[in-house]
Amino acid sequence: MHIFGESHGESVGICIDGIPAGLHLTIDDFLPDIERRKGGIQKATTPRQETDLPIFKSGVFNHYTTGAPLTILFENNNTRSGDYDKQRAIPRPGHADFVAHQKFGGFEDYRGGGHFSGRLTVALVAAGVIAKKLLKHITIQATITEVGGLPTVDAGIEKAIAAKDSVGGIVECTVTGLPMGLGEPFFDSLESVLAHAVFAIPAIKGIEFGAGFAAAKMLGSEHNDAILNSDGVTKTNHAGGIVGGISNNNPLVFRVAVKPTSSTPKIQESFNWETNTVEPFTVKGRHDLCIALRVPVVLEAVTAIVLADFMLMNQLIPRIWNQLNK
Amino acid sequence: MHIFGESHGESVGICIDGIPAGLHLTIDDFLPDIERRKGGIQKATTPRQETDLPIFKSGVFNHYTTGAPLTILFENNNTRSGDYDKQRAIPRPGHADFVAHQKFGGFEDYRGGGHFSGRLTVALVAAGVIAKKLLKHITIQATITEVGGLPTVDAGIEKAIAAKDSVGGIVECTVTGLPMGLGEPFFDSLESVLAHAVFAIPAIKGIEFGAGFAAAKMLGSEHNDAILNSDGVTKTNHAGGIVGGISNNNPLVFRVAVKPTSSTPKIQESFNWETNTVEPFTVKGRHDLCIALRVPVVLEAVTAIVLADFMLMNQLIPRIWNQLNK
Amino acid sequence: MHIFGESHGESVGICIDGIPAGLHLTIDDFLPDIERRKGGIQKATTPRQETDLPIFKSGVFNHYTTGAPLTILFENNNTRSGDYDKQRAIPRPGHADFVAHQKFGGFEDYRGGGHFSGRLTVALVAAGVIAKKLLKHITIQATITEVGGLPTVDAGIEKAIAAKDSVGGIVECTVTGLPMGLGEPFFDSLESVLAHAVFAIPAIKGIEFGAGFAAAKMLGSEHNDAILNSDGVTKTNHAGGIVGGISNNNPLVFRVAVKPTSSTPKIQESFNWETNTVEPFTVKGRHDLCIALRVPVVLEAVTAIVLADFMLMNQLIPRIWNQLNK
Amino acid sequence: MHIFGESHGESVGICIDGIPAGLHLTIDDFLPDIERRKGGIQKATTPRQETDLPIFKSGVFNHYTTGAPLTILFENNNTRSGDYDKQRAIPRPGHADFVAHQKFGGFEDYRGGGHFSGRLTVALVAAGVIAKKLLKHITIQATITEVGGLPTVDAGIEKAIAAKDSVGGIVECTVTGLPMGLGEPFFDSLESVLAHAVFAIPAIKGIEFGAGFAAAKMLGSEHNDAILNSDGVTKTNHAGGIVGGISNNNPLVFRVAVKPTSSTPKIQESFNWETNTVEPFTVKGRHDLCIALRVPVVLEAVTAIVLADFMLMNQLIPRIWNQLNK
Repeated sequence: MHIFGESHGESVGICIDGIPAGLHLTIDDFLPDIERRKGGIQKATTPRQETDLPIFKSGVFNHYTTGAPLTILFENNNTRSGDYDKQRAIPRPGHADFVAHQKFGGFEDYRGGGHFSGRLTVALVAAGVIAKKLLKHITIQATITEVGGLPTVDAGIEKAIAAKDSVGGIVECTVTGLPMGLGEPFFDSLESVLAHAVFAIPAIKGIEFGAGFAAAKMLGSEHNDAILNSDGVTKTNHAGGIVGGISNNNPLVFRVAVKPTSSTPKIQESFNWETNTVEPFTVKGRHDLCIALRVPVVLEAVTAIVLADFMLMNQLIPRIWNQLNK
Repeated sequence: MHIFGESHGESVGICIDGIPAGLHLTIDDFLPDIERRKGGIQKATTPRQETDLPIFKSGVFNHYTTGAPLTILFENNNTRSGDYDKQRAIPRPGHADFVAHQKFGGFEDYRGGGHFSGRLTVALVAAGVIAKKLLKHITIQATITEVGGLPTVDAGIEKAIAAKDSVGGIVECTVTGLPMGLGEPFFDSLESVLAHAVFAIPAIKGIEFGAGFAAAKMLGSEHNDAILNSDGVTKTNHAGGIVGGISNNNPLVFRVAVKPTSSTPKIQESFNWETNTVEPFTVKGRHDLCIALRVPVVLEAVTAIVLADFMLMNQLIPRIWNQLNK
Repeated sequence: MHIFGESHGESVGICIDGIPAGLHLTIDDFLPDIERRKGGIQKATTPRQETDLPIFKSGVFNHYTTGAPLTILFENNNTRSGDYDKQRAIPRPGHADFVAHQKFGGFEDYRGGGHFSGRLTVALVAAGVIAKKLLKHITIQATITEVGGLPTVDAGIEKAIAAKDSVGGIVECTVTGLPMGLGEPFFDSLESVLAHAVFAIPAIKGIEFGAGFAAAKMLGSEHNDAILNSDGVTKTNHAGGIVGGISNNNPLVFRVAVKPTSSTPKIQESFNWETNTVEPFTVKGRHDLCIALRVPVVLEAVTAIVLADFMLMNQLIPRIWNQLNK
Repeated sequence: MHIFGESHGESVGICIDGIPAGLHLTIDDFLPDIERRKGGIQKATTPRQETDLPIFKSGVFNHYTTGAPLTILFENNNTRSGDYDKQRAIPRPGHADFVAHQKFGGFEDYRGGGHFSGRLTVALVAAGVIAKKLLKHITIQATITEVGGLPTVDAGIEKAIAAKDSVGGIVECTVTGLPMGLGEPFFDSLESVLAHAVFAIPAIKGIEFGAGFAAAKMLGSEHNDAILNSDGVTKTNHAGGIVGGISNNNPLVFRVAVKPTSSTPKIQESFNWETNTVEPFTVKGRHDLCIALRVPVVLEAVTAIVLADFMLMNQLIPRIWNQLNK
């Protein structure tokens, strides 16, 4: 799977290998999750509006996947690069401007964050829609549990508006219906692969499974989840559904920390490459007060992508293998 | 890189590809970190003592790496499997017994946790020793910042002893001297790859970079790290040295949550496969009261492995490429 | 690297990761090799004419690569699917129709061979253009050495026309300027990786390095290439520039066998899925009499892709590593 | 899968991930194929005799695979390094001595070819034994079809003895019982992956599928294999069982060219690093007159490894997927 594109380039998109042939797929499948991700709907998200209709460039024929690589494009048609050009001399704190410039020797597409932009998460969401369709009997649900340190979205947003600043948040993801046995010991543990994918989402700075950081303060006898029956159902779920790196037939539960949007309305200071001094500046352009509000659907998407991969690769193989050898 | 072996099998070990030829390597290089990892030294770690001398089976010739795959074995010579056989009917809560049995159809080596055992971390430590030698000018230091919810090791261990229970902890890792530009946007972000490796360590249930979960409660203007000069040095380091998935020339800082040792001295309940009922039982065998005490050197090891990979792959390529094209 | 698309779908294209930032890239760079690949120019290649202008969808900014994934599309605008629909009941011998239908359960895009079409080689050629630009001091040259069993192109084509049939051919590729040391022992031998890529080209049925199959008839003392100096230059080059899987500073030489175009003008027999009988039929559509004529530029492309990968990964790393450790 | 070790080091071996749990495995399973590979039995192969008993270091418990990584060692106990030390100044023509020295900066284990030695093929054979056990209903058979340019083994060996030289050969491999649909279009074509693995075997310089190089001289109507029924059985098998990169339900047939053993008894010339001149020398040590005699069992092994991978990965997934979605 490749995601590609830039915020203010011609398009963003995704190319995916390995989707089984015969999956029914239409543009309508994508609209609900794309709608959830969109800015400008909720107070506190950016007024930039993309039409965001997926364009199938390959891999779909007569509304079914063909088994060949599937490519989806989203055209960029609502960009105002001028906003960004003015600030090229000052790398924005909390943004990738500085590292991108250094890493790519000044050749990076700097407009609107270029390839580092949250705009590319629309490609992740598209891949997530396909993955969710593959995971027929599995439910993935991510919800915001905290905004700006407060337990309700509205209160957190009001705090941001009052402070004329941006805020972060916590998002929790719960997966039910997951079969036992996904994940491998050590380097392909379910936590490893999920965390890998989750940190691909911009602005995520932490992840914890089950009791997570709270587990570090518990006693062993408190934390251990007593197994109740031959299906492996446990009395508590402090492990978050993963033991030894492997799904254990209880709900998969994890939380992520989303940092406050880097583009705050506040005046900030940063180094100016041209004047060689630190100076005050204001970030222009359209931005979210709380990027965490857009995270749930993206978090669901990368979770679905990982689980579909595990289902296709890990889970199915031993099952059919054993059938073949009976 | 492959790690292999079982707690009470013949050996554990590691096979590593891609180590540059000409690295000086002797058994003495391994002893300090292996010593740090060993159980039985500190109160609260298991009395099981392995000699733990690395045996080079391939890839080393006349005390230098040859460039061919390097294989290191650690023989197991101090095992008491009898302890475990008795408990096979009852999968231990918090352990991989249950999932291993289901996933591998009863063919798993169940003695002492088999392949899921913390015993295999000695192989990770060995790989870490080599990786550290490759990272000449980079310092990696992990320390315990919390045990059983208390800020000092001794207090946390006393708490465990008093409670006749096991406890968890927090370990923080700091890396200095890391060059700018390690990591790629999205799926190979530095956070992604580090988190992937870190969750390969048994008992880790959470990871956070820089301010981490605390970032979710901050305002954007608080969290953003002001850039102070052309080297990218920032006033604060809430980002933990990574922006946009890429190292930014500030110290890399992250913390992990270690759950309490699953093998607690307390009487627990679990399902008995033979009697088909939930029943009380006590875990036998030698175990740590606080596995977190062994984690720092293992955390350093996987961090070093990831960074050495990034240094060999990501960092060096563009640098030399630009030189070639000048 | 992903290639995607279908012969009569909307487009074909390629998405490439890992291109260094700062490579100058314009449409003009692509035209000569795309022109070489085109059908309809030489007698014996298909009259289908694509405009075949590469469209950069991501990864290029102000005519330079940005270091982000690069996506190139080629629109399909000259297709006549009607030709193919009629023959859907009869899988064409020598084509992928039958296996595609079985493998993808009837969901494959069957129009013009769909994803299996030689049309996708334009995406390989595009990737090859970029790879060649990265390989500044290396020359890759593929030429046809045999057509229809005859040593000149014209004679081979005349034979095909006279026989009203299609013919195959042999293409030889020579690479000069390749540094010593590319390739790894065993599974990543230079022969392994080149052969892997070469068999991705449709219609290739054999590959041989240096003396190749003729080597099997030679005596050891005849075949061994005497080393003449400290640069490793050899008196003969029966090894084709590769010893022990590693480039040895002599020209890399290999040859591939191209089968005759499957779509021959002759009446053939094949199984009809609808009538359940074997019946005569004629392949319609526009096709090449000798697909081998298009192979040289595609063979150069996959060779350049492999060598650029090796140069970026294998060759540069030890070189800079040694510099760092001096 | 990793193979490791050196000809005159402590051991050679292999570490394999992904073997399904529950495969019955004993030392006896390995003996027949290890016996076939051994030198010293047939006239013309080296008198060096290894006991070659596989030692399971991990992944096997109570004679069954556990699902954890499986490591097998073969100890080296019959080495005479002195033979080789004397010739270190002169890199042997046709051997990897020169490239290994350059690539690994003189740190390579040069004794007996070190990591480049044919000795490591015993590890491939061991992996092949396991792969064959996984491929229950598939038969893989490799035979020598030509030695020293002659159609019988004995005649070819007599030719070598008479010439006091080494000779090469051709080995053909036939696979029956292979299901339809293995392989992917383009870069993971069945030919690509098989060729990749086959060129990991030392001394292989060419591979051709079905009619192979002869196909280049055929007319399309001659070469095309007419499909006869709904199972895809064809009248002829010029394609060697692969069309469009995918197995087509006919026998898989391919041939490899094996160069003459580089270590010929003849006096040769090569460059001397110490004297800086080209000088005559004789290769000492124990060597095969015709390494091709050992190739069949190794060729079967790598073929089985590739096919088992394809069976586990490619073939099973769509099958069970479709079942799940019915």
